Amino acid sequence: LTIVCTLALVALTVTVIVLSPRCLSWWQSSPVYQIYPRSFKDSDSDGIGDLKGILDKLDHFQYLNIKAIWISPFYKSPMKDFGYDVEDFRDIDPLFGSMQDFDDLLAAMHDKGLKLIMDFIPNHTSDTHQWFNLSSSGHAQYKDYYIWANCNTTHAPNNWVSVFGNSSWTYVEERQQCYYHQFLKEQPDLNFRNPHVRREMTEIVRFWLEKGVDGFRMDAVKHILEAKHLRDEPQVDPQQDPDTIDTEFELHHDYTTTQLGLHDILQDWRGEMDVYSREPGRYRFMVAESYDYEETDKTMMYYGTPYAKESDFPFNFYLMDLPTNLTGTGAQGLVNLWMANMPVGKWPNWVVGNHDKPRISSSVGQEYITVINMLLLTLPGTPTTYYGEEIGMVNINVTIDEIQDPFGKFNPVSNASRDPQRSPMQWSDGPNAGFSDANHTWLPLHPHHTTVNVEAQQKDSGSVLSQYRALSLLRQAQLPLHRGWMCYVWSDADVFAFLREIDGLDKAFLVVLNFGADSVINLSAITELPEQLTLHMSTKQENYGMPVIKSSISTARGEGLLLEYSTHMRFNPGHASQCFVSEKACYLGVLDILYKC
Amino acid sequence: LTIVCTLALVALTVTVIVLSPRCLSWWQSSPVYQIYPRSFKDSDSDGIGDLKGILDKLDHFQYLNIKAIWISPFYKSPMKDFGYDVEDFRDIDPLFGSMQDFDDLLAAMHDKGLKLIMDFIPNHTSDTHQWFNLSSSGHAQYKDYYIWANCNTTHAPNNWVSVFGNSSWTYVEERQQCYYHQFLKEQPDLNFRNPHVRREMTEIVRFWLEKGVDGFRMDAVKHILEAKHLRDEPQVDPQQDPDTIDTEFELHHDYTTTQLGLHDILQDWRGEMDVYSREPGRYRFMVAESYDYEETDKTMMYYGTPYAKESDFPFNFYLMDLPTNLTGTGAQGLVNLWMANMPVGKWPNWVVGNHDKPRISSSVGQEYITVINMLLLTLPGTPTTYYGEEIGMVNINVTIDEIQDPFGKFNPVSNASRDPQRSPMQWSDGPNAGFSDANHTWLPLHPHHTTVNVEAQQKDSGSVLSQYRALSLLRQAQLPLHRGWMCYVWSDADVFAFLREIDGLDKAFLVVLNFGADSVINLSAITELPEQLTLHMSTKQENYGMPVIKSSISTARGEGLLLEYSTHMRFNPGHASQCFVSEKACYLGVLDILYKC
Ligand SMILES: [Ca+2]
Ligand SMILES: [Ca+2]
Repeated sequence: LTIVCTLALVALTVTVIVLSPRCLSWWQSSPVYQIYPRSFKDSDSDGIGDLKGILDKLDHFQYLNIKAIWISPFYKSPMKDFGYDVEDFRDIDPLFGSMQDFDDLLAAMHDKGLKLIMDFIPNHTSDTHQWFNLSSSGHAQYKDYYIWANCNTTHAPNNWVSVFGNSSWTYVEERQQCYYHQFLKEQPDLNFRNPHVRREMTEIVRFWLEKGVDGFRMDAVKHILEAKHLRDEPQVDPQQDPDTIDTEFELHHDYTTTQLGLHDILQDWRGEMDVYSREPGRYRFMVAESYDYEETDKTMMYYGTPYAKESDFPFNFYLMDLPTNLTGTGAQGLVNLWMANMPVGKWPNWVVGNHDKPRISSSVGQEYITVINMLLLTLPGTPTTYYGEEIGMVNINVTIDEIQDPFGKFNPVSNASRDPQRSPMQWSDGPNAGFSDANHTWLPLHPHHTTVNVEAQQKDSGSVLSQYRALSLLRQAQLPLHRGWMCYVWSDADVFAFLREIDGLDKAFLVVLNFGADSVINLSAITELPEQLTLHMSTKQENYGMPVIKSSISTARGEGLLLEYSTHMRFNPGHASQCFVSEKACYLGVLDILYKC
Repeated sequence: LTIVCTLALVALTVTVIVLSPRCLSWWQSSPVYQIYPRSFKDSDSDGIGDLKGILDKLDHFQYLNIKAIWISPFYKSPMKDFGYDVEDFRDIDPLFGSMQDFDDLLAAMHDKGLKLIMDFIPNHTSDTHQWFNLSSSGHAQYKDYYIWANCNTTHAPNNWVSVFGNSSWTYVEERQQCYYHQFLKEQPDLNFRNPHVRREMTEIVRFWLEKGVDGFRMDAVKHILEAKHLRDEPQVDPQQDPDTIDTEFELHHDYTTTQLGLHDILQDWRGEMDVYSREPGRYRFMVAESYDYEETDKTMMYYGTPYAKESDFPFNFYLMDLPTNLTGTGAQGLVNLWMANMPVGKWPNWVVGNHDKPRISSSVGQEYITVINMLLLTLPGTPTTYYGEEIGMVNINVTIDEIQDPFGKFNPVSNASRDPQRSPMQWSDGPNAGFSDANHTWLPLHPHHTTVNVEAQQKDSGSVLSQYRALSLLRQAQLPLHRGWMCYVWSDADVFAFLREIDGLDKAFLVVLNFGADSVINLSAITELPEQLTLHMSTKQENYGMPVIKSSISTARGEGLLLEYSTHMRFNPGHASQCFVSEKACYLGVLDILYKC
């Protein structure tokens, strides 16, 4: 009998292993949290955040159930673009600390089960990088490390313009040539057609992987290659006087973005990262940053192909357009832009803010802050939260005299400054909101910090922060939210509603999000829903457990509802075109396991 | 003792297996031979070659030691572009025979150890393909199978021009739209942005793999995708009146060739082929056809990346420029264009003619025919031979009235006709050179067929054919020629010389090729060469075994010498920049094996 039992057990174990779907990796289970290190926490009282400051605040992530922390660049840099201009890819800027501080931070994060995602900035270096100095002087080994072309002081090699405005070419007297810069003139573009440059950058990737970092956010990837022929880009308006072209919006970027060969480079780096991903639990994550609004298929290519892995996902920035699509139908439309175009089997992701774009909380208005967080955390895939979104921070006002952002100083008239979304994190109602002991912080605190801060919101169960935390915990704890189907069930001028269900599990969720005015919707037509559902969470009221009738679901302006229900009927089988899942999995109650189905 | 011996033997076997370099695959061991099926052998006396005709002539390949046969298209076709306009990718044109004839041919080839490479033509179909009829009428399922754009009878959607001249757009009254065709208007381009089209074409690849074909030559791959935005391509001369643009040479093809996403499609097909390559000896071969003269790196991309396999090689057409580079230095330059740009570890290949380009034998002159074959067959990598090159066939004269090539008829003034290089194969001095019993062949025989034919040349040990055969056998039999190093040792106005050696083997070869006038070169400076070498083969004399002194190596105009020598010194270790090898392997004389080194 013992033998039979043992054999049966072995057989069962084998069956379970064979039938188990892939476990979600850490970058799928947890939201990604973006830290802008100048603004997170200042440990040495100079008014600017630093690595030790981050170390002091790791409990915040444990509180929020967030495991994946992306920190914007802290490499050695002259800070012309606040760290996106790197002088030494293997060193830490003293402003942020030392390499020891970095090692301490990484060790402490790993101790707490947190993952550190670095910013990797392959497109360019600072003009103070030693490679650029050697290249400018024509050093044999380095002369082709950057993109040089013949020109003179008055005529650029072609009409290409920088993302930051004006010609993307700058003349260097020493070399009597122009170099190309997609961004500031202090950020010369590396020449990725030079195999030495590719090798150098790959070695830098390896350097940080060896240190143990858990992933990279690949910055500005679409700019990595440019056309070799250097021909003028076509004008959007062919009638425009060519001499007046000075912004990126006036040209079609056929020769400066997304060139053939780009993906080969990213696939190489992915390959390097895979080498370091073999240890269990040590998967190295890659997210690609590329803004290609009009050409969704170009963005989707960063997911890789069936034969060549690339990023785990490219950032999805569509939800940042919520302010101009603030209706139920608008929200569904933005969600669907990703879902309808994403390759089969891939993992979605959602971003509502970052260091480059004004916080949408300021334009949508306070009343929609929590419903946006609920959208973010109940959709399938990985949400990304820019620091402060978890407490509802908004843009600060920065007068022209106060502008810190070099790009903003460069374009003072056009509201181009990115300072408003970079104000210090609001930890408490104390001096400088607990961000710093300095007399002066690098950017002013938002005046509302006395009420909008972590400490105060932790005490308030209805706060933006408490709701964020509850949703983050729910997202991981509830199988349907974690990895189930998402199906559209309703959208109108006010409300966007979708359900989350998993085959085999009776518990499912209906998410009803109000992006307009007070509303009552009738979902009687959805026969797969039971007549009565239960309120699991509302962003505006505390009525946990209250029954809700499907024929009359009320939401106030900006309210989000998470409704739970129990059913044996599934919605997805009959509505394939409204439903989405990355990898199908079914729940088997008897054994409390998931299996491939 | 028996046990010890057994163990020792096992250990030795394991060591040999572990240390063995990869065996060369069939497409590396054998030259590729291109059959233009209209012109190879006519079995049913209609004056046009056919599949049964090929079956009749398989002995020719065994005689030549050629295993890899690429047959230009024989799909069902209205023959507007002689089969490159396919009406049904799953059927054989009656002109060439039946599906039974194909099956018989493939079976007979496999019986004889021959491999059949099909032409796959993904870019377009014939306008008589049922898909196009359904698409023209706006059938819901097929309307996006081709590339349609709004236009009217007088204005094309943009300035794009066909490779065959004039606008690449043609208006269809039924749909009141224009369709895009990169080639003839009877060859509408498929829309590879439509996933259904990708699936259909992949199923066709699978259909032929299931039948057992051994590989595909992928036709016109750079044209597979076009830019979605359909903007005008930039003019080469911006001052040219746009209304006068009607040839491909007047535009930069930034939007109609080599678009992002192209390689993903080829990698998909490669993946399909890999599934069918798992059986030992059943490797399925892919060669990509793409003319990208100026952008070598674009051509090299068809080799794939370290992470995603693609073609085994893209055709290398540089040697077709020999007529305008007919010097030793010129020949080396063309060879080096490939060698210097090919990714490390890849396998080179060489083409001197095909059905699209005039035979270079006519422009270089008779006296250089054999030296070109010697170059082709002694370089490292796979040579491709267009039918007739093995006997020194030259272009025929075709008067304007006689033109058969639709492209030629379309452009009668510009000598665009491809008929001259497509004349019937010359098998004997009999009627129609043994090609056909018909009264009239589809193109005239070359008048010199009475002397230049297979039968006559088989009897003459100094003939083009006999030399070809000797070189083909030598190439496979002699390890240094088969897979050894190739090192440049000399080039001047007349002579190009390189050596072939393999580490560990005392026997090596020096190849001295004369592309100019009578010459004597002095290789005394090459200390790795012994004073005296032995003539293994000359294209102009029969002095096998004659000693040749390295300080005075004579070649006549157009003469090629294959010299053998014995040495313990290797040239490659001291001259890395002049030397090339795909995969390093060393010979171990004691065991008569190759091992990784
Ligand atoms: Ca760049
Ligand atoms: Ca095409």
